[in-house]
Parts: sequence; C-alpha cells; structure tokens
Amino acid sequence: MSRVISVNPTSGVERELGDVETTPAEVVASAQRAALAAREFASRPLAWRAGLLRAMADNLEEDDQRLVDVAMDETALTRGRLDGELRRTAFQLRFFADVVLDGAFLGVSIDHAGDSPMGPLPDLRRMRVPLGPVAVFGSSNFPFAFSVPGGDTASALAAGCPVLIKAHPAHPATSRAAFDALARAARVFDAPAGLLTLVFGFEAGVALVEAPDVCAVGFTGSVPAGRALWQRANARATPIPFFGELGSANPLVVTAAAAKERGVEIGEGVAGSMTLGVGQFCTKPGLLFVPADECGDALVTALVAALERVEPMTMLSAGIAEHFAQGAAAIAGVDGSSRLVGDASSKGTEVAAQLFEVAASHFANESSTVLREECFGPLAVVVRYHGREELSDALSLVEPALTFSVLSADGDGDAGWLLEVAQAKAGRVIVNGYPTGVGVSWSMQHGGPWPATTAPAATSVGAGSIERWLRPVTYQNVPEALLPEALRDENPLHLPQRVDGVARGSVGGLG
Amino acid sequence: MSRVISVNPTSGVERELGDVETTPAEVVASAQRAALAAREFASRPLAWRAGLLRAMADNLEEDDQRLVDVAMDETALTRGRLDGELRRTAFQLRFFADVVLDGAFLGVSIDHAGDSPMGPLPDLRRMRVPLGPVAVFGSSNFPFAFSVPGGDTASALAAGCPVLIKAHPAHPATSRAAFDALARAARVFDAPAGLLTLVFGFEAGVALVEAPDVCAVGFTGSVPAGRALWQRANARATPIPFFGELGSANPLVVTAAAAKERGVEIGEGVAGSMTLGVGQFCTKPGLLFVPADECGDALVTALVAALERVEPMTMLSAGIAEHFAQGAAAIAGVDGSSRLVGDASSKGTEVAAQLFEVAASHFANESSTVLREECFGPLAVVVRYHGREELSDALSLVEPALTFSVLSADGDGDAGWLLEVAQAKAGRVIVNGYPTGVGVSWSMQHGGPWPATTAPAATSVGAGSIERWLRPVTYQNVPEALLPEALRDENPLHLPQRVDGVARGSVGGLG
Repeated sequence: MSRVISVNPTSGVERELGDVETTPAEVVASAQRAALAAREFASRPLAWRAGLLRAMADNLEEDDQRLVDVAMDETALTRGRLDGELRRTAFQLRFFADVVLDGAFLGVSIDHAGDSPMGPLPDLRRMRVPLGPVAVFGSSNFPFAFSVPGGDTASALAAGCPVLIKAHPAHPATSRAAFDALARAARVFDAPAGLLTLVFGFEAGVALVEAPDVCAVGFTGSVPAGRALWQRANARATPIPFFGELGSANPLVVTAAAAKERGVEIGEGVAGSMTLGVGQFCTKPGLLFVPADECGDALVTALVAALERVEPMTMLSAGIAEHFAQGAAAIAGVDGSSRLVGDASSKGTEVAAQLFEVAASHFANESSTVLREECFGPLAVVVRYHGREELSDALSLVEPALTFSVLSADGDGDAGWLLEVAQAKAGRVIVNGYPTGVGVSWSMQHGGPWPATTAPAATSVGAGSIERWLRPVTYQNVPEALLPEALRDENPLHLPQRVDGVARGSVGGLG
Repeated sequence: MSRVISVNPTSGVERELGDVETTPAEVVASAQRAALAAREFASRPLAWRAGLLRAMADNLEEDDQRLVDVAMDETALTRGRLDGELRRTAFQLRFFADVVLDGAFLGVSIDHAGDSPMGPLPDLRRMRVPLGPVAVFGSSNFPFAFSVPGGDTASALAAGCPVLIKAHPAHPATSRAAFDALARAARVFDAPAGLLTLVFGFEAGVALVEAPDVCAVGFTGSVPAGRALWQRANARATPIPFFGELGSANPLVVTAAAAKERGVEIGEGVAGSMTLGVGQFCTKPGLLFVPADECGDALVTALVAALERVEPMTMLSAGIAEHFAQGAAAIAGVDGSSRLVGDASSKGTEVAAQLFEVAASHFANESSTVLREECFGPLAVVVRYHGREELSDALSLVEPALTFSVLSADGDGDAGWLLEVAQAKAGRVIVNGYPTGVGVSWSMQHGGPWPATTAPAATSVGAGSIERWLRPVTYQNVPEALLPEALRDENPLHLPQRVDGVARGSVGGLG
C-alpha cells in the first residue's frame, strides 16, 4: 500500500496523507458500484438532482477557508486566486442545477404517428438519457474549477451520471477535502451509494479508462497524457467516448491599426494575461502576432518592460517547472528565435516569465514546429510580420486552439478576414480582449479541433458540456403508461418539447 | 488505370463502366478543392442551401426510372423496394431542407455582458459552424437511402459541409447515376466547385479517411470494415471524428403473455421482418427471445412455416452471400444450436432463409459469442428461455444494438423491466412492432453504444444526424458589424435564439 503524498511546491516539503493509492481491482469494483448507482440516480426527479448540485455548492462555500488553505499549501497559487476559483466552482454547480431544471438538455421530441411521403410513420419519441458512470481526470492548474468539484463532475452529475474522479497528484489533499464536501451533500440527499468515487495514483487512472463499467471519460491536461489515455479508451474491447481538453497555443493577433492605436496598452495587457496564474492557464496567449513596424516595436518594448517587472513565480509542481524549462530551452534553440525576457537558469519550482521573438518568415521553417505547440507556463513567442500576406501565411500554420484573439481598431480592414481565420481555427474567438478567463454561461465554448480537444464538437465549460454525458434514445410505439414521464403528451414535468417538428412555447435548445 | 466494374449478382455478368478507380493523389486533390468550396458554401444563405437540397430531391425523382433500373441490375433488389427507397431518399433530402430552414440546428445562444457571482462576464455568443469536408461511405444494402444521395450526404450538405463520397463496389453504376443527379442540381444552383466528389475503389476509400483536408467521416457497414477505417481516422496526425454505423444483432423479446396471446401472429410477423430486403437490413431482428413453453412452441412453428414459404433470394453480391454462408456455418457449429430452417448448401448469390434455435442456458456459453454478433442476411437465432430470471441473465449478455424490440400483451408484468433493459442496450426501443423500417423524422434515433455505432450519441437518420457535422464556436466581445448574422441582436435571419439563458418565442432545440 503506497501512501498518497502531498508536496508543497514552494518548500518541497512532503506530507503523507491518510489515503493510499487505489488498486486497479478497487477501481473495477467502484465502477461496478457506480453502474448500480447509475440506474437509481437517473430515476430520481430532476428537482432532486438540482438540489443535490446546490447542496454541493453550499458545502464547498461552507468549507472555503479550509479548502483554500489546503490548496495554497499544495499549489503555490495565491489566496485571492484560489478564493475566486472556489466561488466560480460553487457558481458552476449552481449553474448546472439551473441547466437541469431548464430541461432543454433532454432534447425531448415527440412525433405522433402519421402519414409521410415515405409511407406511414409510427409514434416516435426521442430524449437524451445518461451514458452511465463517467471517469473524471482533473487538471493540475485549477484545483477546484477543473478538478474534483469542477466542470466535468458538475456536468456529469447534472446529466445523471455517477462520477469516478482521479485525484491529480499535484493536489491530492485538496482533492480529498473537496471530495468530502461533495460526499457530505450526497449523504444528506441520500444519494445512491457509488454515485461518487475518488481514486488516487497513476495505475488507478489507467484502470479507470479501462474499467468495463465506465462509459465515458472527461480529461483536462497535456497532449501526451491525453493522447495516451484516449488511445487506451479506443483500444478497449468496447471503446468509449473520451473527451480530452488538451493543448492550445492560443494565438493572439495584433493588427497594424491596433498596434498604432494602442500598442503600449496591448503590450501591458498581454503581459498580464500570459502571466496570470503563473501562465498555467489552458487559455494563456502563447503566440503573439505583432506587426514588424515601429508601432509593433513599441508594443514589444512595453510587453518586455511589463514582464521584467513580474516577480519570479512558483509553479504547481517540480515536474511542471522542469517541463517548462525544457520547453523554453527548445524554443530558444529554434533557428531565428531570440530571447527577449528571462534566462536559461532555473531554480526548482521558481520561474521567471519568458518571452521570445521570431520573424514570421522563420515561423514557417520546419524546425519551428515547437513554436506552434503549447508551452505550459508564463512564456509567449512574439511573431513579427510584414503585411497581410505574411501574416496570413503564418496563421495558416497555426494549430487549432481553444481560443483565437484579434486585437483590432475601429474600422480596421483586417478584422474581417482575421475573424474568418479565427473561426476556422478555434472554439472561442475574442475581439479586443484576452483569452484567459472562461466564463461559465449558456454561450461558452471551451473546446476546438484537435489538438485543442479530442472531440471538436465538445465543450468542457458552459451549458453545452452536459451533452458529452448523454445519448439519445427513441421510443417507438410505446404505450403512454410505459413511457418515461418526459415523453408523455400531457408533459407532467413541464419540459421543453418539440412536437411534430414544432417547438412548443418556450422550448429551447441548449444553445 | 483500373476500370470500375459493375456486377449483376443474379447472373454474375460483369460490365465495365466509364469510370476508373480514383488514385490517392486524386483524392487528396479533391479534398483540397472541397476545403476551398467549404468556406464559400458555408457563406451562402440558408434558403439557398435548402433550395439546393430540394433540387437534388427533384432530380432524383426526375431520373427515377433510370436509377431504379440501374440499381435493380446491380443489387437484385425488387423494383417495388427500390422505388420506395428512392422516394424515401428524395423525402429525406427535402426533410433536411426543412431542418435547415428551421434553424434550431445552429444552436444560437446569446449572453449579453453582465455581472455574475464569478465576476463580470463579457458578451458571449455561440452557434454551430460546419466542420468542413466530410467523407461519406455508403452502405451495400441501401443503394439510395444510405449511399451516394443518402442520409450522410443530405445531413452533411444541410450542415454546410462539402462531401466526398466513396461509391460502394456493390453498386458503382447506381452510385454514378445518383451522383450525376445531385451534381446537376449543384450546377444549376451555381454551387462552388468541389462541393460534391465521387471516388471509386478501395484505396480511394483509405485515402479519403487520411486526406488532410477531410474533417469527418460518415460510414455505414460492417464492424470489421468500420473498425479498420475508424482506427485509421484515429491514427492520423490530426485525428478526426468518425461516425460509423456498424453491426447490430437487434434483439427482439417475446414475453410469455404475448406468446400466449398471439404467438402465431408474432411468428409470422418476425418472418416478414427478418427476410425483408433479403435480411440485408441493419435493423433486421437477429436474436429472438421466445418462452420455452407451448405458446412459444406455437410461435416457433408458425415462424418456421412462414420462412419455409419464402422463396430463395439473391443477395447483393457474391462476397456478401459467401459471408452469410460462413456466418450460418459458425452458428450451426455452436454447442447446443439446432437448425430449424435452411440448409448448409449455398449456390452463389442465391440463399434461403435460415433459422436456428438454442436454449437460453446455452446462450451464456463462451462458445456462443458468435450468436450475439450480427449475421447479415435472412437469418435469426431463437433463444428459448424459462422464466424471467433466465431471460434477464441472457439479455445481460446481449451486445448494444441499434434497436431492441419488446412484444408484450396488455397489462404485461414483464414490459416495464424489459423496457429498462432495452433503453440501456439500444438507441431505439420498440413495443409491439418490428425494427425494420427507420422513419426519417425529428424524433428518430438510429445509433447506439458500441458496436452499434462508433459514437453512442450520434444518429445517422433523422434531424439529429446533422449534428455530427457541426462544432460550436463562441464569439466573445465581437462588434455587431463583425458578427455572423445568426448571432446579431436584431436576429435578421429570424432564427431560434436562446438569449441570456431564456429561449425566445418558438425557439427549439433539435430535439
């Protein structure tokens, strides 16, 4: 039995927790219990489900001081940041309670029997049902919002799916404490046993993806780790959906007009965005396209000055800091790249912001692929371009991303075509703003084509994220008494329904 | 240059067509043209897109006699069947024109900037956009409805995606003729070049899945072929979504009460459903659970008698007939299985219906896995059960399927739990009906967990099938003038919109 270890990334001090690493056999057994819980959970009323999510939010807030203290010790993130993240996480759980009560996520559609040009059609009624137990892999960088009590857990529970959560090794004590807050709510609500499971350890994670009773996976993390687990999900005798949010270089383009209008302001804004949370955001702007003119020079000068004012920062773990140093070294080694801020030295988990510059003509080199990949941490690459054509050519090489930002000026002739490029490359397109900060809302899309995510239509934030854990079932010619309540003509649950092709009243799609 | 060959399955006569097999380099070039067409196609008005789909339907009906003649020669299917299939295919294209004009498929959601418990949120607007060029692999068994002019093509075009279609080798001449009808409409509508591509040959199919500009794949066919292509889609440097509708054994359960009430009628009904289209339906009932009592005996006797009256039938191709004979031989070899109808002899493409019987206790044997897989053709396996427990145990071994049928009587105590099992196992649950016949409608689900499909939430028939070819994009803080029309406040396209979380007017989800 290996005890779970919590490490303080600032001091390096290790602490043994009460938990031990979960064995593969225990994972399989937990998944079986989750499968048993799934049917009972799905049958509880939607109002009960919403109440459970709200109670979980209440418990997180009730435990806020203890949760934030534990997380500070494990992550080296600031109290202000963690406190805000906790509020966001509680809000997210309550938001999904609203999504559950709204009912549009069920996608109810009723077609009564009738004639058609293809002959008589039977009575057909369709709704979404929960997939079954979901495995959740939290991220290192958001110990609450994208971890144990985060978006994957909240959306899977909202969908009616039990969750089996792998604690991230960078914050196991936070994972345990947050899990206990969720589990307390489950007990008070008399939720079925097996609804919530927490597992620890690398092998337990692999076992989760392979457990026969697990029906889908939600993952937030790096491209290599995500791709490896995705391959395991695909290699199962019965492959299952794997929703991975992986890497994203998050291009940000400054038009010539914007650099002219407010280059210094943009330089300072980018510095803030790329160092927020020690640059450990999946939406950190990593590729900055700046005109190769005097206004661009002024922007870069301001960016450099702002970054040089940033104090050294502690990353989430020694492994992440080491990976960051390797990434910076690789970028430094690219033909034509020059380092504007930072140096090659590194001291354990403490790092300084780094900024590199390369000409757009070099960006296209084969040796430059490393520039186009995410480097997790407070680092960005400035790509200097001469004119629209060179910019367009360079952008054609950019990999799909979670976000694509365009900083433009009023009446800017470049904004239109840049938005078209942005839309083709990313899940979220931002004008005159910075990509860090992902609002929980009906209209959020946090996803994008590979390698941003493993499933281009999926989002891991916002109302749409619930769709990952559902599949439609059509009931044909099923007598009223045997139909799920959601599909009955008298609509006892007052759900949005599409009836004979026509949306009824305030019916709404998920958006 | 290999000429494409059309084979008459009845006579075995081969005919050289004007087409030659497409080279991989030609496929890559066509995909590039499709990618160029994609942007232009997506920018055309929705009404134009709907008009194009309707013109395609008109052209299919205009060419109906020629299309049906060609298809009869290649498939050995009857004129009545092919004529009906052509009408269905035209209806399906018009149905997708309605889906386009309805507009709910865009999933428009607008959240105005505002405050939230997680702090201020920017203006966020989300809609679905087309993925880009889609590769379509038609099936052997529906030369119109699930082939060149079929559901994948119709839904991809409705979504705004160009299509590259692989002609099925069992009906290349039909594929060419149907393609020409579609292409004629595209020309009249001045559609962008590269919107429609037809390719021939095995290598061209592989090249389609691997072409860098192809963004998604729609496939209808066998588990081995589908799994192999799905693996190739996953092995790409940039993996793409692969929507495969693969195999399905389609369980059908007759309760004791139903067998007692109308066993003979059910026996005759099953015989008709399992031999429809020479049993070459993905929804053919293949596993028949019948009580091991006298009423069940009467049902089986009626089923046997009805099958013995069915004349020998010609399958779609020599390869398919050979595969059918192999499948029947494997089932005959299972411990405890006895053949009730048919014999082991086979004469080229001409086959007789086959029926096997096995006790539920044998169904659970390890050697019986072949019974639980689809055998494509006019063959079914009767599983005789004693009581609820034995039935429940046997059903737990059944693989997920496209459909699950329950034949019950009024007030039948078994209907409730059987529907729960059915919902967990299949995408479409049928009471007192047969699974063959898949209506095109808002509420149809034609899909299911693996191995029924590669993506459990996808459907390849009905309005929801358009969702496979779309991904959401969120526009953050984008000025009105730069927003897509669909996302503007004044709603110039009169689309269903969810605004600040509330569905507006007759807003409707897809269903």
